[in-house]
Amino acid sequence: MSETQIRFGILGCAEIARKVSRAITLAPNATLYAIGSRSLEKATKFASSNNFPETAKIYGSYDAVLDDPDVDAVYIPLPTSLHIKWAVAAAEKKKHILLEKPVALNVGEFDKILEVCEKNGVQLMDSTMWMHNPRTKKMKEFLSDSDKFGDLKSMNAVFTFAADPDFLENDIRVKPDLDALGALGDAGWYCIRAILWAADFQLPKYVTALPGTVFNKAGVIIACGASLHWEDGKVATFHCSFLANLTMTITACGTKGSLHLHDYVIPFEEKQASFSTATESGFTELVTGWVPLPSQHTVMTDVPQEACMVTEFSRLVKSIKNDGSVAEKMWPTLSRKTQFVLDAVKVSTEKGGEAVSLS
Amino acid sequence: MSETQIRFGILGCAEIARKVSRAITLAPNATLYAIGSRSLEKATKFASSNNFPETAKIYGSYDAVLDDPDVDAVYIPLPTSLHIKWAVAAAEKKKHILLEKPVALNVGEFDKILEVCEKNGVQLMDSTMWMHNPRTKKMKEFLSDSDKFGDLKSMNAVFTFAADPDFLENDIRVKPDLDALGALGDAGWYCIRAILWAADFQLPKYVTALPGTVFNKAGVIIACGASLHWEDGKVATFHCSFLANLTMTITACGTKGSLHLHDYVIPFEEKQASFSTATESGFTELVTGWVPLPSQHTVMTDVPQEACMVTEFSRLVKSIKNDGSVAEKMWPTLSRKTQFVLDAVKVSTEKGGEAVSLS
Repeated sequence: MSETQIRFGILGCAEIARKVSRAITLAPNATLYAIGSRSLEKATKFASSNNFPETAKIYGSYDAVLDDPDVDAVYIPLPTSLHIKWAVAAAEKKKHILLEKPVALNVGEFDKILEVCEKNGVQLMDSTMWMHNPRTKKMKEFLSDSDKFGDLKSMNAVFTFAADPDFLENDIRVKPDLDALGALGDAGWYCIRAILWAADFQLPKYVTALPGTVFNKAGVIIACGASLHWEDGKVATFHCSFLANLTMTITACGTKGSLHLHDYVIPFEEKQASFSTATESGFTELVTGWVPLPSQHTVMTDVPQEACMVTEFSRLVKSIKNDGSVAEKMWPTLSRKTQFVLDAVKVSTEKGGEAVSLS
Repeated sequence: MSETQIRFGILGCAEIARKVSRAITLAPNATLYAIGSRSLEKATKFASSNNFPETAKIYGSYDAVLDDPDVDAVYIPLPTSLHIKWAVAAAEKKKHILLEKPVALNVGEFDKILEVCEKNGVQLMDSTMWMHNPRTKKMKEFLSDSDKFGDLKSMNAVFTFAADPDFLENDIRVKPDLDALGALGDAGWYCIRAILWAADFQLPKYVTALPGTVFNKAGVIIACGASLHWEDGKVATFHCSFLANLTMTITACGTKGSLHLHDYVIPFEEKQASFSTATESGFTELVTGWVPLPSQHTVMTDVPQEACMVTEFSRLVKSIKNDGSVAEKMWPTLSRKTQFVLDAVKVSTEKGGEAVSLS
């Protein structure tokens, strides 16, 4: 069994690394192999409180993880500003990379990461977990069905959560030297990804930031929105914020159908996930009700979406390691498109809502 | 019983008048008394196929309805371009007015209608039926609860339906000389009303039309969107269209809670209506699920919302007629605010998305 398992090293003891550590444990083809932190004490504590095997390596630096020849892949949950340094360093050591989102501070930095990954034959995947939920595939089948959904015409995505005062003061996501993209890079990443996903990853022609962006004192975005516009007339809007109650909503309207869900980033429940669809909705004779009624669909997720992600990533890594396959380009391509649109929204925000072309 | 019933005359045989005729029949304090059409034949047919009492008056003109001294109130479902003429004529004959939306081609016209109504002591109410659904009151209680919802921060409203080729060619809502406001006046009216309703009818400081407005060959809007911005930083977006599957969605995010529903204009079912709320939503320890889960609320509506509307309108009319009360100003005030914002969105659309101030 052990030769088929991808050995993970984790860089840093971020809170999100706890969830991903569990996912690595749950994935049948992955194993927790090493943890590195600038503090050996923190690394030791992290390993012991997150079910690392007793044989796991505990390191007092990130470099030590990268220098370990038995580490196949690293998970990088470091602040965005550190991605370029550590993703490049990991790729140069031929470690495959599961990278937290946003993947970089801008697409230029990400391209440098990509270049080194390609040069070293390293698999890169961003840690957008919901992409790997089995529900996502089912929803995509619906969106791709020309009879049930038709062509996407408009979409709205929302991701907000109510950060507490400590978060708004101290979290890395409000710090210009750490996660400088703020709510746009964090919650907005998911909105943009969802919109691109629904649009078959066709890039919009241009984007415009909506008025009303909220910046903190340090100039980091803590709430914003944008509209995205495609050549074929498709439109999408999104809103992301640290200032409103947790909301994760997608409304997608096609020529023939509609899709709704309210927990697209993190399902309400771990073991099952639902969504609602409607096709060729009309009214009763006197317009006093709908015919047909929308349908509710529930998809079982015995393996949580983050473990599905680790499994898929590890499958690709194993295929490179054991079978001599080349790295799968789809995943970094999706990361790059998401970052590219995110950058454009940020520029539009800075230019007071001016349309920013993506062509 | 009969002296307490408000006697309705209906101007024209519009399809929507069938639904409102039934509502008048269902309302305990209203009765179908007269129908007028430019064609006596059409009026006769309409009366017989919509359960008018045998004693109902059938007229071959709208004027004849207004000249009937026993008509207390009129329902005006005529094309928007005719509202000013017939609402003014009705008010001058001291008929109370239930007026289809949009209430006028612009707020200037509506102000003329209002002036004549006030001069003649006539009650005016627009026919935005969902405002009278008992669910609406329950949702408002939630939105007004500072512990459960807090302050509204952002909102998205969608109303689209997939018009068939005949509609897109021939319906009054695509004709510049009839319902010249097109999808904005029809579906957009509801979006704007919902947003204002959630914002306690505080007017936004400015609105901006989103790019991507779709016009038909005659220059009538058949799809558009806008963002609305308040002094306190609240933001809202909406999208309305004749080009996508029937969708009626509200997503409202407050500092402490969220509200969702997908059938705000016309409930899925006539006898009950639901909505979903969440308060202080958070995550399980490893962020693998939500705590607490959102709550689903169902409100019974034994009397359909349009009959609730007729009942409320008739109650106000009776109070004027029998008790010497003055007309209730709240309803025309809400109509005016909705039309005012709608006008601003239209101007912004025409100016390529320039911000239009409402102050």
